[in-house]
Amino acid sequence: MAFGGGHGLSVSLRALRRVPDLEITAVVTVGDDGGSSGRLRADRGVLPPGDLRQALAALAGSDPLSAGTADLFQYRFDGADPLGGHTVGNLVLCGLMELHGDAVAALDHAAALLHSAGRVLPMSRVPVEIEAEVRHASGVVESVRGQHEVAITPGHVEVVRILPPSPPACAEAVRAVEAADWLIFGPGSWYTSVIPHLLVPELAAAILASPARRVVTLNLAAEKETASLPVPDHLHALTRYLPGLTADVVLADGKAVGDPEPVQRAAESLGARLVLAPVAVDSGCPRHDPSALAVALSPVLGTAR
Amino acid sequence: MAFGGGHGLSVSLRALRRVPDLEITAVVTVGDDGGSSGRLRADRGVLPPGDLRQALAALAGSDPLSAGTADLFQYRFDGADPLGGHTVGNLVLCGLMELHGDAVAALDHAAALLHSAGRVLPMSRVPVEIEAEVRHASGVVESVRGQHEVAITPGHVEVVRILPPSPPACAEAVRAVEAADWLIFGPGSWYTSVIPHLLVPELAAAILASPARRVVTLNLAAEKETASLPVPDHLHALTRYLPGLTADVVLADGKAVGDPEPVQRAAESLGARLVLAPVAVDSGCPRHDPSALAVALSPVLGTAR
Repeated sequence: MAFGGGHGLSVSLRALRRVPDLEITAVVTVGDDGGSSGRLRADRGVLPPGDLRQALAALAGSDPLSAGTADLFQYRFDGADPLGGHTVGNLVLCGLMELHGDAVAALDHAAALLHSAGRVLPMSRVPVEIEAEVRHASGVVESVRGQHEVAITPGHVEVVRILPPSPPACAEAVRAVEAADWLIFGPGSWYTSVIPHLLVPELAAAILASPARRVVTLNLAAEKETASLPVPDHLHALTRYLPGLTADVVLADGKAVGDPEPVQRAAESLGARLVLAPVAVDSGCPRHDPSALAVALSPVLGTAR
Repeated sequence: MAFGGGHGLSVSLRALRRVPDLEITAVVTVGDDGGSSGRLRADRGVLPPGDLRQALAALAGSDPLSAGTADLFQYRFDGADPLGGHTVGNLVLCGLMELHGDAVAALDHAAALLHSAGRVLPMSRVPVEIEAEVRHASGVVESVRGQHEVAITPGHVEVVRILPPSPPACAEAVRAVEAADWLIFGPGSWYTSVIPHLLVPELAAAILASPARRVVTLNLAAEKETASLPVPDHLHALTRYLPGLTADVVLADGKAVGDPEPVQRAAESLGARLVLAPVAVDSGCPRHDPSALAVALSPVLGTAR
């Protein structure tokens, strides 16, 4: 199972679906408050649907109907009218959550519509807010609230937290952690998509207690929220927020890592071996290529079977 | 194939899907300008989706996923926020029409999602406006524009027309008329859902030229727009707007018709026999019961096979 949110999780899922014989479960942060998701969350009190929708689209069946329906889910209305900026999938998920009165039932319904290659679950049935203390270049530390604000605020994230501070974990996500062979963290916005999972107490406890092996897939390039966070510190941040977390494999792109020595040491501090593989797209953009990521992940995940 | 719009067509389709071995095509008016459909039409320039959605929901598969997806299509957001008043299905159809750039491709996609028991087509790819000259009780004749306004304006409809006056017919609808064994008109809002089809020149010509047999299903009770239209005049109205139209069967509820004699004569003027059957729901509401309508239609449609 894979933890994350947004684009990073979506790439991870597109890779995992290429690995044969995996039963995929995605667990998704529910902290988004920007754009279409933010409007729906504010207007209708539902879980922010955007990251859930992206995960569903990534897992959609490859038959023409499912692929077309994934395109529909991802289709964003243009214009400045009331629909402008919303994706169809966000509106469908919002309707499903209201119709079923339960986010997991809604997500399972959407997954069935998309002939999804796996299950998509929220980390919590309660939407959360992400809050960070950000130290600016001036030295001033500012409290920044909201996933979107945290993601776009320049400066160094001193600490990140979620509100409410101890949201109930989605029970189905906890059960999936307990039953998993592999837990996969990242890639993705480290503070706003990866670490929030570790801040949900029951989920954190299940992760620590799970006999599953763990992979951490590192990012290719720093985002605003991690501009001042060296690559090895991405790994230290995981154990800072979930002391006792160990990993089996840290997967990174050799070019993105540069000198592997410090990353190797950080991986070892988690109990993990570092696997370097060319997992970026050819174009030079700092984006993971799902096929290359699948090629890198296959032998890693194969060792557990 | 069945012509209509809104609730009447939906009931007709729910009946037809109970008749074995039918290949169902619904052709739907595109004149709605009220409510959610009116807002989407005005904001996004798409065909008004509401009547198309209702027809799709009526034809949705009876397996749990399809039935649940039909419930989703019919789910209407409450509240006063920008989504309030919209049904999910209207938003999905709007997205599909924009995504595919073609209403028929959009409807076929939606039908596939719903495992629809038949095809739903618009009478035209161009949205139309319905306009009527309405004579009030005072004798004053007023020009009323918009399907919604026409439907709710009290008075006698002297004449109804559509704008643009000669919209291009949906080619797939014309082909379906040419290939049909049966053409089924009504029940439904006579001036705003049934007659508009006869005002699309290519569709009217195809109906006249088609070797198919024809059934006219009469309404159970007058609506505002037909409050002053006696039952036999419903049949005369069809030939007034499409001279030369004949029918094989006129199906009506005995109780709703009252004295059958004038209706019988009006049916004969179309070349049709009058079939009286108990097709209303038990509750006393003037609504067709799909099962009873299916029971009445089965032997009628069976005679063509």
